[in-house]
Amino acid sequence: MTDALLILNAGSTSLKFTLYAVPDGGGDPRPLARGRAEGLDGRPHLRIRAEARGAGEAIEEDLDPDGGYESVLARVLTWTEAHGAGLRLIGAGHRIVHGGPDFAAPVRLTPAIVRRLAALNPLAPLHQPHNLAPVRALAHSHPGLPQVGCFDTGFHATNAPLTSRYAIPRALHDLGIRRYGFHGLSYEYIVSTLHAHLGPAAGGRVVIAHLGGGASMCAVHQGRSVASTMGFSALDGLPMATRSGAIDPGVLLYLMAEKDMRAAELGDLLYRRSGLLGVSGISGDMRRLLASDAAQAREAVDLFTYRIGRELGSLAAALGGLDALIFTGGIGEHAAQVRARVIEAAAWLGLRLDPAANEADGPRISPEGAAVPAFVIPTDEDLIIARHTLGVLRTWPPRHRGGPDRAGA
Amino acid sequence: MTDALLILNAGSTSLKFTLYAVPDGGGDPRPLARGRAEGLDGRPHLRIRAEARGAGEAIEEDLDPDGGYESVLARVLTWTEAHGAGLRLIGAGHRIVHGGPDFAAPVRLTPAIVRRLAALNPLAPLHQPHNLAPVRALAHSHPGLPQVGCFDTGFHATNAPLTSRYAIPRALHDLGIRRYGFHGLSYEYIVSTLHAHLGPAAGGRVVIAHLGGGASMCAVHQGRSVASTMGFSALDGLPMATRSGAIDPGVLLYLMAEKDMRAAELGDLLYRRSGLLGVSGISGDMRRLLASDAAQAREAVDLFTYRIGRELGSLAAALGGLDALIFTGGIGEHAAQVRARVIEAAAWLGLRLDPAANEADGPRISPEGAAVPAFVIPTDEDLIIARHTLGVLRTWPPRHRGGPDRAGA
Repeated sequence: MTDALLILNAGSTSLKFTLYAVPDGGGDPRPLARGRAEGLDGRPHLRIRAEARGAGEAIEEDLDPDGGYESVLARVLTWTEAHGAGLRLIGAGHRIVHGGPDFAAPVRLTPAIVRRLAALNPLAPLHQPHNLAPVRALAHSHPGLPQVGCFDTGFHATNAPLTSRYAIPRALHDLGIRRYGFHGLSYEYIVSTLHAHLGPAAGGRVVIAHLGGGASMCAVHQGRSVASTMGFSALDGLPMATRSGAIDPGVLLYLMAEKDMRAAELGDLLYRRSGLLGVSGISGDMRRLLASDAAQAREAVDLFTYRIGRELGSLAAALGGLDALIFTGGIGEHAAQVRARVIEAAAWLGLRLDPAANEADGPRISPEGAAVPAFVIPTDEDLIIARHTLGVLRTWPPRHRGGPDRAGA
Repeated sequence: MTDALLILNAGSTSLKFTLYAVPDGGGDPRPLARGRAEGLDGRPHLRIRAEARGAGEAIEEDLDPDGGYESVLARVLTWTEAHGAGLRLIGAGHRIVHGGPDFAAPVRLTPAIVRRLAALNPLAPLHQPHNLAPVRALAHSHPGLPQVGCFDTGFHATNAPLTSRYAIPRALHDLGIRRYGFHGLSYEYIVSTLHAHLGPAAGGRVVIAHLGGGASMCAVHQGRSVASTMGFSALDGLPMATRSGAIDPGVLLYLMAEKDMRAAELGDLLYRRSGLLGVSGISGDMRRLLASDAAQAREAVDLFTYRIGRELGSLAAALGGLDALIFTGGIGEHAAQVRARVIEAAAWLGLRLDPAANEADGPRISPEGAAVPAFVIPTDEDLIIARHTLGVLRTWPPRHRGGPDRAGA
């Protein structure tokens, strides 16, 4: 039998997961299979493909439309149990978007802690409840299975108190209205790879651009987050596929006062109808925009790269300079044209482009001798969650307490 | 008789003005007197002091509480008429905060144009109606007096279309929901002085920090605005005396959904209870905060200087580098400690501080040989308005049309 970990990343209508084998002799968890259930609000559909030879049959099938997360998880677990090599699931790890002011490090998801995390739902109403749903489903169907939560906000806990403060009354700050920052699991993974790419400069002033459907950038020094472009919510900073990114609060006041818009309508506007989609009127998908000849598509891409350039300057200020720039995320890893334009606009910071290396998606996309090198590094949030999950399992329950651990039930 | 110009800057409860003599032989208008009426919402009080010898008696008196702008203007005009040297008022110039998408250059304020400017009230509800009130009062009491409007947004009309775009649906952009930028009259004045301070480098990449009760920063290249920190409203960008500056739109959505706050309450929070006042809990006045030993006061000052540093990086990115930094406005001209901290944090950009020159409020506050020099330059918005007013009067009505000009009535 092989010990296995199930790593889950749950969204509003989808559930992505990776199954890892835990090597007997230590070392990193090894991916066995990846899967994705989509359409959980209507016609759920599941795909699983093996990552390793002999790791099981690929499947693609419809699921019970009324089954929700429970039915997806049940199917994933039967698939796991039917695994040829014999797998023993020893834990589940979850991506949880918001740790609030109290949770930064990965944590065993006891019922009490799940309740505290659910109290943070208003801080991330579009993500947090969905992140927690499969935690509850697994606790119900597999009461003995240890579960671990890893927070997208956690990596930014090292930000200075000043960086996390908005210029609002102290009482509101103390209520938790402050900058948190997100995409922390991605940043943490990238930081774990920096030494291999940068050598000793990995401890320097690095900006990581996580550019995907959600997009943010993080300033890192000595491997720690110093500042990032997202703040209280996942709406601030860069424009995204359908999110506005930073926008004058006066715009919201205007839309409320003059257009009689309420919270739900404004949320829909800024989360779902803005960003690349809103500017182009065509699509929120960068691939479609780059393939389009329409002036509006070009304008959306221009705005995206322009705003990355401005945020890069702001983050360099937070760091007091720049030693390296890293691209990751779906757009960061695959959109050579976006990377090229960001780097060309940032020549003033010492960045230079190696066009051929950039077309080949790196890893190094700046020529030898560039004052500030640039890299493409594919991210792997699930691996970070798997590492943390294993780490938490190995230190819990503390041995000196003895007895069976019932907290995970 | 000497030709004179009355330059007006009207706020919600105050009216500031400068009376200028127009030299016969050309050259800049020369200030004769400055005045300020305050308490227009309750017990109006007027102060006028002469700027030039023999320019009239200083006065300080209470005014009719029910008289509004009309009574203030009437008193100012009788004061002018009683002027010893004999003044003939040839025009009035007004600071108008918002020109909207259509008005950038100074404009003769005909009734039709005043109506179009009043249609912009929703874009600047706290300023625009007050700016226009004395225009109407003067048009009523002095129907023949030409009046000119100068726009705080106008200087930023040179920003690239991309810079002024938010990542929201195109239809909203086309409705006028875009970045405008403010403090343009101050920036324009500073730019007019740059050659005297910088020589040929005046055409380079300059950031001007207008730091007062309202605060913004502007990136200037070849004397033209490239980008600025304020956007659609005067709420964005830097924290200010009582305004929040930039804040995650998600914070507003949260306060609406969870705290049931409406537009008026949010506006009050972000315009009047935030910024230095909100963070310190003590005062929005930088002088009081710098004189305070309280940790909360220090935190407010720290946040102010930190955010200036971040915006400086962002604006340097907009310029592709930085050749000079200028401080102006009440805080910029007088708070040596704020300037020192901004410059020290910006060493990465090549800025260096000359502490003695800084304590003496400049003008040059960086040592010889600093890669990027820094200056303190007192602003003079009224002079810019006076210049523009004179310029508009001299070209209007166009001579080839002939006949009396009735549009100003």
